[in-house]
Amino acid sequence: MTVLILTGEEDVTADMVVAHLNASSVPVVRLDPADLTAGAALSGEYVHGTFRGHLSSGERLVSVEAIRAVWVRRPGVPAARAAQPSAWLTQETAQALYGMLRDCGARWMNDPDAARRARYKPWQLRLAQRCGLPVPATLITTFPQAAREFAERFPDLVVKPVSGAHPQEPPRAVPTSRVAPGTDFAAVAYGPTLLQRRIAKRADVRLTAVGGTLLAARKETAADADPDQVDVRFAPPGAPWRPAEVPRAVARSVHAYLRRARLAYGAFDFAEDADGTWWFLECNQSGQFGFVEVDTGQPIARTIAEWLAGTARPGTPVAES
Amino acid sequence: MTVLILTGEEDVTADMVVAHLNASSVPVVRLDPADLTAGAALSGEYVHGTFRGHLSSGERLVSVEAIRAVWVRRPGVPAARAAQPSAWLTQETAQALYGMLRDCGARWMNDPDAARRARYKPWQLRLAQRCGLPVPATLITTFPQAAREFAERFPDLVVKPVSGAHPQEPPRAVPTSRVAPGTDFAAVAYGPTLLQRRIAKRADVRLTAVGGTLLAARKETAADADPDQVDVRFAPPGAPWRPAEVPRAVARSVHAYLRRARLAYGAFDFAEDADGTWWFLECNQSGQFGFVEVDTGQPIARTIAEWLAGTARPGTPVAES
Repeated sequence: MTVLILTGEEDVTADMVVAHLNASSVPVVRLDPADLTAGAALSGEYVHGTFRGHLSSGERLVSVEAIRAVWVRRPGVPAARAAQPSAWLTQETAQALYGMLRDCGARWMNDPDAARRARYKPWQLRLAQRCGLPVPATLITTFPQAAREFAERFPDLVVKPVSGAHPQEPPRAVPTSRVAPGTDFAAVAYGPTLLQRRIAKRADVRLTAVGGTLLAARKETAADADPDQVDVRFAPPGAPWRPAEVPRAVARSVHAYLRRARLAYGAFDFAEDADGTWWFLECNQSGQFGFVEVDTGQPIARTIAEWLAGTARPGTPVAES
Repeated sequence: MTVLILTGEEDVTADMVVAHLNASSVPVVRLDPADLTAGAALSGEYVHGTFRGHLSSGERLVSVEAIRAVWVRRPGVPAARAAQPSAWLTQETAQALYGMLRDCGARWMNDPDAARRARYKPWQLRLAQRCGLPVPATLITTFPQAAREFAERFPDLVVKPVSGAHPQEPPRAVPTSRVAPGTDFAAVAYGPTLLQRRIAKRADVRLTAVGGTLLAARKETAADADPDQVDVRFAPPGAPWRPAEVPRAVARSVHAYLRRARLAYGAFDFAEDADGTWWFLECNQSGQFGFVEVDTGQPIARTIAEWLAGTARPGTPVAES
């Protein structure tokens, strides 16, 4: 009956959740895969049709069978802090750790295979459409002619990366930018480009889903905001995040999205337009929530702790859509 | 109604399957993700709740909705042959291509998420146990003391990598080796080590599963074989592969394994002992089959072509175990 948290040493967000788990006397083991073979250890035995596994981290030794839930927060690269790190050692260690934990019977936030799939933006857009969420018209293309035709149909566009952060060291977020009128799309031929109809937004919405619990926050766009500043992550602070009601139809769609994606946690970003419609932008399966909790006072960390401990209220029952 | 094959230009195994598809007049598009943005192109549009996608490769243009099956053979690194390759371009291209193809409605051999999970050896061992396949006693550990105790219980051991090939350029297979008596296991502390009871084998068995069709081949161990030579990939040629009957219980377990792993293709390696028991060693979801087809004359390529074309006989119905 233990919660395993895979994350690095310095992770104040994890600390918030651990505090709640400690308050409820739920045993927690915190393990950074980077510490494996130097500070952390593992063992798994497959004999006569059965499996017995152990993990040790710091002073704690836990049986794999006793792990009730695994929270994949911000795990380090396996064996990165070993005495003699190497690509080979990382591969072997990743295989041993994640191979042993997969299907160990624990609940995952999030299951690593579901998490990996959930990162594909084109897949997100299609799933959001299927779940009934409004998705701004989007084109992902390497055909300049397709980009030109799309820009004729939707003259007010933004461009954003298809994937997440730029893989430099440390990774860098690439801002969403407005496409200037009359842009020549010839360069599209050299790399897939994601163009999306710009939503003239009156607010950004962050909906944090934890199991069946949805906690939404809304940040109003300033009346004098620069319309070229489309990416809230790079905008001046402005209004704080405030708790928001989740419209019924959105809630139904979000529950369907999580179920089909097999995600226990998701941070959904929407742009709210002048009509009040929430336009789906993306769902980050490992999105930060600390800044929302600080601004709104919403009990996100506590809800995560309850989910991990298995004491969360059951998810809102939603008909299959 | 098209079969999409993701592979490189030089792939004689794919050629064998393509020949069968051509003979049945099934349209085939062959695309190497490495060619994207230079020779290959993609486009996907998400408008008003619907998706329309296209891929072009060489002279062929195919609608994503028309793809009936995707065969992930040996795809190159996305955009590796672009005019200006980079880690960023590879990431963007991988996201665009695989994000668009995921859940496009086609059948996959193999689904990329299932394929990824299927590579975890510890997960394979546990799944094989659960499906009722005999698994030689195995230990994966970084605890030297656990290794010593295991070697006392099972004195005749082999050691093999937890993961697959060594990630050098080009990747190199790491042979399974016999553990010498009296080995000191102190070094286990520095990297996860996989120890497995050696099966005194009278034959190697390769079982190729294509959908519901199981084709097994057997290669007898020479009477004068060196018992230290445990890895068939590195042994002298010896006897050829011969077709073999699949024992009923093994067939049932293999069908269960594929179903739970969500795999349409798997190359299972077994060691046959003196009692005729097939001991599960591993299941390679992208294992080669050309050498077996050459030796045995078994119609593996044709069976794959039939599966991709959707004309294969349905899988043997097997009760859920």
